[in-house]
Amino acid sequence: MEKVPVLDVLTEAFKRLPGVGPKTAQRYAFHLLQHDRPAAELLGRTLLEAVVKVGHCTRCNTLAENALCKLCSDSSRDATLLCIVESPADQAGLETTLAFKGYYFVLLGRLAPLDGIGPNDIAFEKLLARAVDGLVTEVILATSFTQEGEATAHYLSQFLKSRGIKTTRLARGVPMGSELEYVDASTIAQALRDRR
Amino acid sequence: MEKVPVLDVLTEAFKRLPGVGPKTAQRYAFHLLQHDRPAAELLGRTLLEAVVKVGHCTRCNTLAENALCKLCSDSSRDATLLCIVESPADQAGLETTLAFKGYYFVLLGRLAPLDGIGPNDIAFEKLLARAVDGLVTEVILATSFTQEGEATAHYLSQFLKSRGIKTTRLARGVPMGSELEYVDASTIAQALRDRR
Repeated sequence: MEKVPVLDVLTEAFKRLPGVGPKTAQRYAFHLLQHDRPAAELLGRTLLEAVVKVGHCTRCNTLAENALCKLCSDSSRDATLLCIVESPADQAGLETTLAFKGYYFVLLGRLAPLDGIGPNDIAFEKLLARAVDGLVTEVILATSFTQEGEATAHYLSQFLKSRGIKTTRLARGVPMGSELEYVDASTIAQALRDRR
Repeated sequence: MEKVPVLDVLTEAFKRLPGVGPKTAQRYAFHLLQHDRPAAELLGRTLLEAVVKVGHCTRCNTLAENALCKLCSDSSRDATLLCIVESPADQAGLETTLAFKGYYFVLLGRLAPLDGIGPNDIAFEKLLARAVDGLVTEVILATSFTQEGEATAHYLSQFLKSRGIKTTRLARGVPMGSELEYVDASTIAQALRDRR
Protein backbone atom coordinates (compact mmCIF):
# COMPACT_ATOMS: atom_id res chain seq x y z
CA MET A 1 0.00 0.00 0.00
CA GLU A 2 1.38 3.38 -0.97
CA LYS A 3 1.72 5.98 1.77
CA VAL A 4 -0.48 9.04 1.33
CA PRO A 5 1.79 12.09 0.84
CA VAL A 6 1.76 14.44 3.83
CA LEU A 7 0.82 17.34 1.55
CA ASP A 8 -2.39 15.52 0.58
CA VAL A 9 -3.18 14.77 4.23
CA LEU A 10 -2.61 18.43 5.03
CA THR A 11 -4.98 19.56 2.28
CA GLU A 12 -7.61 17.09 3.52
CA ALA A 13 -7.19 18.43 7.07
CA PHE A 14 -7.68 22.03 5.95
CA LYS A 15 -10.84 20.97 4.09
CA ARG A 16 -12.44 20.22 7.46
CA LEU A 17 -12.48 23.93 8.31
CA PRO A 18 -15.92 25.50 7.77
CA GLY A 19 -16.41 26.87 4.27
CA VAL A 20 -13.06 25.60 2.99
CA GLY A 21 -13.15 23.62 -0.26
CA PRO A 22 -10.36 21.75 -2.06
CA LYS A 23 -8.96 24.84 -3.82
CA THR A 24 -8.69 26.95 -0.67
CA ALA A 25 -7.34 24.01 1.33
CA GLN A 26 -4.57 23.48 -1.21
CA ARG A 27 -3.85 27.20 -1.23
CA TYR A 28 -3.46 27.22 2.58
CA ALA A 29 -1.16 24.17 2.50
CA PHE A 30 1.05 25.50 -0.31
CA HIS A 31 1.20 28.97 1.18
CA LEU A 32 2.38 27.79 4.58
CA LEU A 33 5.00 25.40 3.22
CA GLN A 34 6.25 27.72 0.52
CA HIS A 35 6.12 31.11 2.20
CA ASP A 36 5.51 30.86 5.95
CA ARG A 37 6.84 27.77 7.71
CA PRO A 38 7.04 29.55 11.08
CA ALA A 39 3.27 30.09 10.81
CA ALA A 40 2.79 26.40 9.98
CA GLU A 41 4.72 25.45 13.12
CA LEU A 42 2.89 27.98 15.25
CA LEU A 43 -0.50 26.85 14.00
CA GLY A 44 0.39 23.17 14.41
CA ARG A 45 1.71 23.56 17.94
CA THR A 46 -1.14 25.82 19.03
CA LEU A 47 -3.81 23.47 17.68
CA LEU A 48 -2.41 20.53 19.64
CA GLU A 49 -2.05 22.71 22.74
CA ALA A 50 -5.59 24.04 22.42
CA VAL A 51 -7.12 20.58 22.07
CA VAL A 52 -5.53 19.61 25.38
CA LYS A 53 -6.01 22.86 27.29
CA VAL A 54 -9.31 24.34 26.14
CA GLY A 55 -12.43 22.97 27.77
CA HIS A 56 -15.70 24.56 28.77
CA CYS A 57 -16.32 27.07 31.55
CA THR A 58 -18.15 25.24 34.34
CA ARG A 59 -20.46 28.21 34.82
CA CYS A 60 -21.32 29.56 31.37
CA ASN A 61 -20.20 26.74 29.04
CA THR A 62 -18.04 28.91 26.81
CA LEU A 63 -14.65 27.68 25.60
CA ALA A 64 -12.11 28.35 28.35
CA GLU A 65 -8.73 27.18 29.59
CA ASN A 66 -9.66 27.28 33.25
CA ALA A 67 -12.66 25.97 35.19
CA LEU A 68 -14.05 29.51 35.13
CA CYS A 69 -13.71 31.64 31.98
CA LYS A 70 -12.36 35.17 32.10
CA LEU A 71 -15.83 36.76 32.02
CA CYS A 72 -17.29 34.51 34.73
CA SER A 73 -14.26 35.23 36.95
CA ASP A 74 -14.84 38.96 36.63
CA SER A 75 -16.79 39.85 39.78
CA SER A 76 -17.29 43.47 38.68
CA ARG A 77 -19.97 42.50 36.16
CA ASP A 78 -23.70 42.81 36.78
CA ALA A 79 -24.95 39.53 38.30
CA THR A 80 -28.60 40.44 37.76
CA LEU A 81 -28.31 40.14 33.98
CA LEU A 82 -27.84 36.83 32.16
CA CYS A 83 -27.51 36.80 28.39
CA ILE A 84 -28.17 33.52 26.57
CA VAL A 85 -26.29 32.94 23.32
CA GLU A 86 -25.91 29.94 21.05
CA SER A 87 -22.13 29.80 20.68
CA PRO A 88 -18.82 31.20 21.94
CA ALA A 89 -18.62 33.13 18.65
CA ASP A 90 -21.95 34.86 19.35
CA GLN A 91 -20.70 35.68 22.84
CA ALA A 92 -17.49 37.15 21.39
CA GLY A 93 -19.60 39.22 18.99
CA LEU A 94 -21.68 40.64 21.82
CA GLU A 95 -18.58 41.40 23.87
CA THR A 96 -17.09 43.50 21.06
CA THR A 97 -20.07 45.87 21.38
CA LEU A 98 -19.08 46.76 24.99
CA ALA A 99 -22.83 47.29 25.46
CA PHE A 100 -23.46 44.44 27.91
CA LYS A 101 -22.04 44.22 31.40
CA GLY A 102 -23.82 41.15 32.76
CA TYR A 103 -22.90 37.48 32.52
CA TYR A 104 -23.43 35.00 29.71
CA PHE A 105 -24.70 31.50 29.28
CA VAL A 106 -23.66 29.62 26.13
CA LEU A 107 -26.16 26.99 24.96
CA LEU A 108 -23.67 25.32 22.59
CA GLY A 109 -26.50 24.70 20.17
CA ARG A 110 -30.14 25.48 19.61
CA LEU A 111 -33.37 23.56 19.43
CA ALA A 112 -33.81 21.96 16.02
CA PRO A 113 -36.73 19.53 16.20
CA LEU A 114 -36.33 18.58 12.54
CA ASP A 115 -32.78 17.40 13.25
CA GLY A 116 -33.88 15.70 16.46
CA ILE A 117 -32.21 18.25 18.74
CA GLY A 118 -34.44 18.78 21.77
CA PRO A 119 -34.00 20.49 25.16
CA ASN A 120 -31.93 17.56 26.43
CA ASP A 121 -29.34 18.03 23.70
CA ILE A 122 -28.48 21.60 24.65
CA ALA A 123 -27.18 22.66 28.06
CA PHE A 124 -30.65 23.14 29.39
CA GLU A 125 -30.47 21.78 32.93
CA LYS A 126 -27.32 23.74 33.53
CA LEU A 127 -28.99 26.89 32.23
CA LEU A 128 -31.94 26.42 34.55
CA ALA A 129 -29.65 26.02 37.56
CA ARG A 130 -27.80 29.15 36.46
CA ALA A 131 -30.95 31.25 35.93
CA VAL A 132 -32.53 30.48 39.31
CA ASP A 133 -29.42 31.33 41.35
CA GLY A 134 -31.34 34.09 43.14
CA LEU A 135 -29.25 36.90 41.69
CA VAL A 136 -30.43 36.88 38.09
CA THR A 137 -33.47 39.13 37.60
CA GLU A 138 -33.49 39.33 33.82
CA VAL A 139 -32.55 36.78 31.18
CA ILE A 140 -31.76 38.29 27.78
CA LEU A 141 -32.41 35.86 24.94
CA ALA A 142 -29.78 36.52 22.27
CA THR A 143 -30.19 33.39 20.17
CA SER A 144 -30.09 33.85 16.38
CA PHE A 145 -32.95 35.43 14.48
CA THR A 146 -33.33 32.30 12.39
CA GLN A 147 -36.29 29.94 12.65
CA GLU A 148 -34.43 27.61 14.98
CA GLY A 149 -32.99 30.47 17.05
CA GLU A 150 -36.45 32.03 17.38
CA ALA A 151 -37.96 28.69 18.39
CA THR A 152 -35.24 28.26 21.01
CA ALA A 153 -35.86 31.77 22.36
CA HIS A 154 -39.60 31.13 22.47
CA TYR A 155 -39.19 27.84 24.29
CA LEU A 156 -36.75 29.28 26.83
CA SER A 157 -38.90 32.32 27.44
CA GLN A 158 -41.99 30.18 28.17
CA PHE A 159 -39.99 27.92 30.41
CA LEU A 160 -38.28 30.68 32.40
CA LYS A 161 -41.47 32.77 32.69
CA SER A 162 -43.25 29.77 34.26
CA ARG A 163 -40.52 29.89 36.92
CA GLY A 164 -41.05 33.60 37.51
CA ILE A 165 -37.94 34.80 35.69
CA LYS A 166 -38.28 37.84 33.46
CA THR A 167 -37.01 37.34 29.93
CA THR A 168 -36.30 39.85 27.17
CA ARG A 169 -35.27 39.45 23.55
CA LEU A 170 -32.80 41.49 21.48
CA ALA A 171 -34.70 44.10 19.45
CA ARG A 172 -35.50 43.26 15.85
CA GLY A 173 -35.33 46.03 13.31
CA VAL A 174 -33.44 47.69 10.51
CA PRO A 175 -29.65 47.24 10.81
CA MET A 176 -27.57 50.38 11.38
CA GLY A 177 -26.36 51.99 8.17
CA SER A 178 -28.97 50.28 5.97
CA GLU A 179 -30.72 51.84 3.01
CA LEU A 180 -34.42 50.98 3.51
CA GLU A 181 -34.64 50.05 -0.17
CA TYR A 182 -32.43 47.01 0.39
CA VAL A 183 -33.89 45.76 3.68
CA ASP A 184 -36.17 42.71 3.40
CA ALA A 185 -39.89 43.17 3.90
CA SER A 186 -40.27 41.12 7.07
CA THR A 187 -37.52 43.13 8.80
CA ILE A 188 -39.25 46.40 7.85
CA ALA A 189 -42.62 45.06 9.00
CA GLN A 190 -41.10 44.08 12.35
CA ALA A 191 -39.41 47.48 12.67
CA LEU A 192 -42.77 49.16 12.00
CA ARG A 193 -44.57 47.10 14.66
CA ASP A 194 -41.80 47.77 17.20
CA ARG A 195 -41.41 51.48 16.35
CA ARG A 196 -40.68 53.80 19.25
CA MET B 1 2.66 39.51 32.91
CA GLU B 2 -0.56 37.78 32.01
CA LYS B 3 -0.34 34.72 29.76
CA VAL B 4 -2.03 35.10 26.36
CA PRO B 5 -4.95 32.64 26.21
CA VAL B 6 -4.30 29.76 23.80
CA LEU B 7 -7.56 30.57 21.96
CA ASP B 8 -6.21 34.02 21.10
CA VAL B 9 -2.89 32.55 19.94
CA LEU B 10 -4.83 30.10 17.78
CA THR B 11 -6.87 32.88 16.19
CA GLU B 12 -3.68 34.83 15.51
CA ALA B 13 -2.11 31.75 13.92
CA PHE B 14 -5.10 31.23 11.61
CA LYS B 15 -4.87 34.89 10.58
CA ARG B 16 -1.55 34.11 8.92
CA LEU B 17 -3.31 32.01 6.27
CA PRO B 18 -3.76 33.88 2.97
CA GLY B 19 -7.02 35.83 2.80
CA VAL B 20 -8.03 35.02 6.37
CA GLY B 21 -9.07 38.00 8.53
CA PRO B 22 -9.91 38.14 12.24
CA LYS B 23 -13.54 37.01 11.81
CA THR B 24 -12.72 33.95 9.74
CA ALA B 25 -9.76 33.08 11.97
CA GLN B 26 -11.99 33.13 15.03
CA ARG B 27 -14.60 31.07 13.20
CA TYR B 28 -12.01 28.42 12.33
CA ALA B 29 -10.72 28.29 15.92
CA PHE B 30 -14.19 28.07 17.50
CA HIS B 31 -15.40 25.53 14.96
CA LEU B 32 -12.53 23.13 15.53
CA LEU B 33 -12.68 23.34 19.33
CA GLN B 34 -16.46 23.23 19.55
CA HIS B 35 -17.39 20.81 16.79
CA ASP B 36 -14.40 18.94 15.42
CA ARG B 37 -11.52 18.30 17.81
CA PRO B 38 -10.30 15.27 15.83
CA ALA B 39 -9.82 17.62 12.87
CA ALA B 40 -7.90 20.05 15.11
CA GLU B 41 -5.57 17.23 16.17
CA LEU B 42 -5.18 15.97 12.62
CA LEU B 43 -4.41 19.45 11.30
CA GLY B 44 -1.99 20.19 14.14
CA ARG B 45 -0.09 16.92 13.78
CA THR B 46 0.02 17.11 10.00
CA LEU B 47 1.30 20.69 9.97
CA LEU B 48 4.21 19.80 12.27
CA GLU B 49 4.93 16.68 10.23
CA ALA B 50 4.80 18.58 6.94
CA VAL B 51 7.22 21.27 8.14
CA VAL B 52 9.76 18.56 8.91
CA LYS B 53 9.17 16.27 5.95
CA VAL B 54 8.29 18.47 2.98
CA GLY B 55 11.19 20.02 1.12
CA HIS B 56 11.79 20.79 -2.53
CA CYS B 57 12.33 18.34 -5.38
CA THR B 58 16.00 18.53 -6.37
CA ARG B 59 15.07 18.40 -10.02
CA CYS B 60 11.97 20.56 -10.49
CA ASN B 61 11.82 22.57 -7.22
CA THR B 62 8.23 21.66 -6.38
CA LEU B 63 7.22 20.79 -2.81
CA ALA B 64 8.05 17.12 -2.22
CA GLU B 65 8.77 14.68 0.58
CA ASN B 66 11.58 12.89 -1.24
CA ALA B 67 14.62 14.16 -3.13
CA LEU B 68 12.67 13.55 -6.35
CA CYS B 69 8.98 14.43 -6.53
CA LYS B 70 6.41 11.96 -7.83
CA LEU B 71 6.29 13.55 -11.29
CA CYS B 72 10.06 13.73 -11.72
CA SER B 73 10.33 10.07 -10.63
CA ASP B 74 7.87 9.03 -13.33
CA SER B 75 10.08 7.89 -16.21
CA SER B 76 7.08 7.35 -18.52
CA ARG B 77 6.66 11.07 -19.11
CA ASP B 78 7.93 12.93 -22.17
CA ALA B 79 11.44 14.19 -21.43
CA THR B 80 11.49 16.46 -24.49
CA LEU B 81 8.91 18.82 -22.96
CA LEU B 82 9.63 21.09 -20.00
CA CYS B 83 6.87 23.30 -18.63
CA ILE B 84 7.87 26.30 -16.51
CA VAL B 85 5.41 27.43 -13.83
CA GLU B 86 5.61 29.91 -10.98
CA SER B 87 4.41 27.79 -8.08
CA PRO B 88 3.49 24.27 -6.95
CA ALA B 89 -0.16 25.41 -7.05
CA ASP B 90 0.14 26.35 -10.74
CA GLN B 91 1.76 22.97 -11.38
CA ALA B 92 -1.10 21.20 -9.59
CA GLY B 93 -3.57 23.21 -11.71
CA LEU B 94 -1.90 22.12 -14.94
CA GLU B 95 -1.78 18.49 -13.79
CA THR B 96 -5.55 18.42 -13.21
CA THR B 97 -6.04 19.10 -16.94
CA LEU B 98 -4.32 15.80 -17.85
CA ALA B 99 -3.28 17.67 -21.02
CA PHE B 100 0.48 17.73 -20.39
CA LYS B 101 2.71 14.68 -20.25
CA GLY B 102 6.15 16.28 -20.01
CA TYR B 103 8.10 17.43 -16.96
CA TYR B 104 7.84 20.64 -14.94
CA PHE B 105 10.14 23.23 -13.52
CA VAL B 106 8.83 25.38 -10.67
CA LEU B 107 10.38 28.87 -10.46
CA LEU B 108 9.09 29.50 -6.92
CA GLY B 109 8.55 33.13 -7.85
CA ARG B 110 8.64 35.46 -10.81
CA LEU B 111 10.64 38.47 -11.87
CA ALA B 112 9.37 41.61 -10.19
CA PRO B 113 11.86 44.42 -10.84
CA LEU B 114 9.76 46.93 -8.86
CA ASP B 115 10.08 44.70 -5.78
CA GLY B 116 13.76 44.09 -6.45
CA ILE B 117 13.28 40.47 -7.51
CA GLY B 118 15.69 39.74 -10.33
CA PRO B 119 16.89 36.56 -12.08
CA ASN B 120 19.13 35.68 -9.14
CA ASP B 121 16.17 35.57 -6.76
CA ILE B 122 14.30 32.88 -8.66
CA ALA B 123 15.68 29.42 -9.39
CA PHE B 124 17.27 30.57 -12.60
CA GLU B 125 20.62 28.79 -12.65
CA LYS B 126 18.91 25.54 -11.82
CA LEU B 127 16.40 26.08 -14.60
CA LEU B 128 19.19 26.70 -17.11
CA ALA B 129 20.95 23.48 -16.09
CA ARG B 130 17.65 21.66 -16.42
CA ALA B 131 16.78 23.11 -19.83
CA VAL B 132 20.11 22.29 -21.49
CA ASP B 133 20.17 18.62 -20.40
CA GLY B 134 20.19 17.52 -24.03
CA LEU B 135 16.75 15.91 -23.85
CA VAL B 136 14.51 18.97 -23.66
CA THR B 137 13.55 20.23 -27.11
CA GLU B 138 10.72 22.59 -26.13
CA VAL B 139 10.25 24.75 -23.06
CA ILE B 140 6.63 25.76 -22.44
CA LEU B 141 6.35 29.04 -20.53
CA ALA B 142 3.32 28.78 -18.27
CA THR B 143 3.93 31.73 -15.98
CA SER B 144 0.91 33.89 -15.08
CA PHE B 145 -0.69 36.23 -17.58
CA THR B 146 -0.04 39.18 -15.27
CA GLN B 147 2.50 41.91 -16.01
CA GLU B 148 5.14 40.22 -13.89
CA GLY B 149 4.37 36.77 -15.25
CA GLU B 150 4.54 38.09 -18.82
CA ALA B 151 7.83 39.85 -18.10
CA THR B 152 9.24 36.63 -16.64
CA ALA B 153 8.10 34.66 -19.69
CA HIS B 154 9.63 37.25 -22.02
CA TYR B 155 12.94 37.25 -20.19
CA LEU B 156 13.14 33.45 -20.08
CA SER B 157 12.21 33.12 -23.72
CA GLN B 158 14.97 35.56 -24.81
CA PHE B 159 17.46 33.83 -22.61
CA LEU B 160 16.63 30.28 -23.72
CA LYS B 161 16.36 31.21 -27.39
CA SER B 162 19.89 32.65 -27.26
CA ARG B 163 20.98 29.16 -26.16
CA GLY B 164 19.14 27.53 -29.06
CA ILE B 165 16.21 26.17 -27.02
CA LYS B 166 12.73 26.49 -28.53
CA THR B 167 10.20 28.17 -26.24
CA THR B 168 6.43 28.37 -26.52
CA ARG B 169 3.84 30.21 -24.46
CA LEU B 170 0.36 29.07 -23.35
CA ALA B 171 -2.27 30.45 -25.76
CA ARG B 172 -4.07 33.61 -24.74
CA GLY B 173 -7.73 33.93 -25.60
CA VAL B 174 -11.31 33.82 -24.46
CA PRO B 175 -11.84 31.39 -21.54
CA MET B 176 -14.02 28.34 -22.21
CA GLY B 177 -17.69 28.92 -21.38
CA SER B 178 -17.46 32.73 -21.54
CA GLU B 179 -20.10 35.06 -22.93
CA LEU B 180 -18.17 37.47 -25.17
CA GLU B 181 -20.14 40.37 -23.68
CA TYR B 182 -18.37 39.91 -20.34
CA VAL B 183 -14.83 39.28 -21.57
CA ASP B 184 -12.43 42.24 -21.21
CA ALA B 185 -11.34 44.08 -24.33
CA SER B 186 -7.66 43.19 -24.21
CA THR B 187 -8.48 39.47 -24.04
CA ILE B 188 -10.80 39.77 -27.05
CA ALA B 189 -8.19 41.77 -28.97
CA GLN B 190 -5.58 39.07 -28.24
CA ALA B 191 -8.01 36.32 -29.25
CA LEU B 192 -8.65 38.18 -32.54
CA ARG B 193 -4.94 38.50 -33.30
CA ASP B 194 -4.32 34.82 -32.50
CA ARG B 195 -7.44 33.53 -34.30
CA ARG B 196 -7.07 30.17 -36.11
